[in-house]
Amino acid sequence: MSKPAIGFIGLGIMGRPMAGHMQAAGYPLTVVNFDPPLPENLLQAGAVVCQSNREVAEKSDIIIIMVPDTPDVEKVLFNEDGVANGLSAGKLVIDMSSISPNATVEFAQKINALGCDYLDAPVSGGEPKAISGELTIMVGGPEAAFERALPVFETMGTTITLIGERNGDGQVCKVANQIIVGCSVQAAAEALLFASKAGADPRKVHEALMGGAARSVILENHARRMLDRNFEQTFRVELQRKDLGLAVEACREMGMVLPNATTAWQLLNACEANGDLNADAISVLKVLERMANHTLEA
Amino acid sequence: MSKPAIGFIGLGIMGRPMAGHMQAAGYPLTVVNFDPPLPENLLQAGAVVCQSNREVAEKSDIIIIMVPDTPDVEKVLFNEDGVANGLSAGKLVIDMSSISPNATVEFAQKINALGCDYLDAPVSGGEPKAISGELTIMVGGPEAAFERALPVFETMGTTITLIGERNGDGQVCKVANQIIVGCSVQAAAEALLFASKAGADPRKVHEALMGGAARSVILENHARRMLDRNFEQTFRVELQRKDLGLAVEACREMGMVLPNATTAWQLLNACEANGDLNADAISVLKVLERMANHTLEA
Repeated sequence: MSKPAIGFIGLGIMGRPMAGHMQAAGYPLTVVNFDPPLPENLLQAGAVVCQSNREVAEKSDIIIIMVPDTPDVEKVLFNEDGVANGLSAGKLVIDMSSISPNATVEFAQKINALGCDYLDAPVSGGEPKAISGELTIMVGGPEAAFERALPVFETMGTTITLIGERNGDGQVCKVANQIIVGCSVQAAAEALLFASKAGADPRKVHEALMGGAARSVILENHARRMLDRNFEQTFRVELQRKDLGLAVEACREMGMVLPNATTAWQLLNACEANGDLNADAISVLKVLERMANHTLEA
Repeated sequence: MSKPAIGFIGLGIMGRPMAGHMQAAGYPLTVVNFDPPLPENLLQAGAVVCQSNREVAEKSDIIIIMVPDTPDVEKVLFNEDGVANGLSAGKLVIDMSSISPNATVEFAQKINALGCDYLDAPVSGGEPKAISGELTIMVGGPEAAFERALPVFETMGTTITLIGERNGDGQVCKVANQIIVGCSVQAAAEALLFASKAGADPRKVHEALMGGAARSVILENHARRMLDRNFEQTFRVELQRKDLGLAVEACREMGMVLPNATTAWQLLNACEANGDLNADAISVLKVLERMANHTLEA
């Protein structure tokens, strides 16, 4: 049985390796010509280049979207030359971007009305896990559509969970993930800067903390990069702020308050004042450093 | 060579198993009669009972203190019948309580003036790790004193780190640990409650999050107890609030601000309003639940 044709829209630092994994697994790949720059390796391996998102939808069985934010997904789907205008019944649209859970519900309803299934399937793990094909994928949508997509997901990720059969459940899970990640990055930065300002060796503190209840993926990876002052981008401040903003926005819609997530979200605004909006999310350390008039010495 | 005699002051839920491990390893143990209730197993194994902390200090080579807060340590050391009045040159005082780093510097100076060494050696891991002898021990003080204490520490802990040769460095590390632990418990509570209020299954969300960048000891253990609504005490709200209060107090002394730690500290005040000051620290979930008028359904 030949594999379904995949249309992939959004060849950014995440999308490029993700599309590459699908192509390497034998899925015919269709991309769009204004997704810059079209990666040479995808073209050489036979990716078909279309002139519009509509044309991608026409030529594919499964259309995958991986763009930065809610308005980007809306444009890709519903612009005049958008995906919706190229769909026919039976196709499957998968949004792997991290966007608003509520907007996702609306988008899915419109796609369903065209006789197509919709999955929201945001990912966690950043560029390193996109490259290694070890993403965490959190999925919302009908189980049958999930089963149809699973072999495709398995080319890109290792922890693949159907959170619920309601569209939006995947995005809700991703927002929950980002609440923890965003708060944890800042807690690690605060802990190490506190220790350093108090005169202790932050590397020794990090070593001790990794042996106890404070141990986490964030303390292992992000805090180590803070100690090394390695601010090379793995995940942009701008995207972390956007994700915590999705939490705050959804809180307002639902009538609930998350004081810790809100504090973390606010602090990311000061990264912009520092000119670090496009730097790695650990740059929030520099905001704390400026407030403390102290640099983490490691 | 016979093992040094240990005086142990503070036989609470942490101190009892810690003293038991030392005694089981062959250290002669001295305790004080008003440390209620004196555990039968320690007495049957030959623990000597003294009438005052001063007498414990007179009869021991190494005096270990494990009490709740800074004023408690001060009383144990410097009251009329306190440890300081029973010390003679060459003895070693080890404070394993979690208290103020700055007060620790003062206490150590006074003990040093009597010709004795002082180590601050707070622990992490709570009652379960105290019982299993797998505590994380964070030590500040002279390396020679650390080497002298190490065999004793090894009866109680598995990750034992000399953070620095300055007294107070161990307490600084413990405060850093509690910043991460306190913030992480609340981030986990916020993430799960958010997902639940948004209609997703928090157990599925937890499962997915454990596979990615949000994974941590806190998400594994504390969040699982939140899902099970198991509020059985492992570490009291009151102590977590005290520890974050140490961070906030030290911040004021040093002239720095930690917005995330401060938010987490403040929220613990509402646990008191809920009547949960003596409940487990995960009870902060109930504060968030009341604010959201929603209970985490798992």
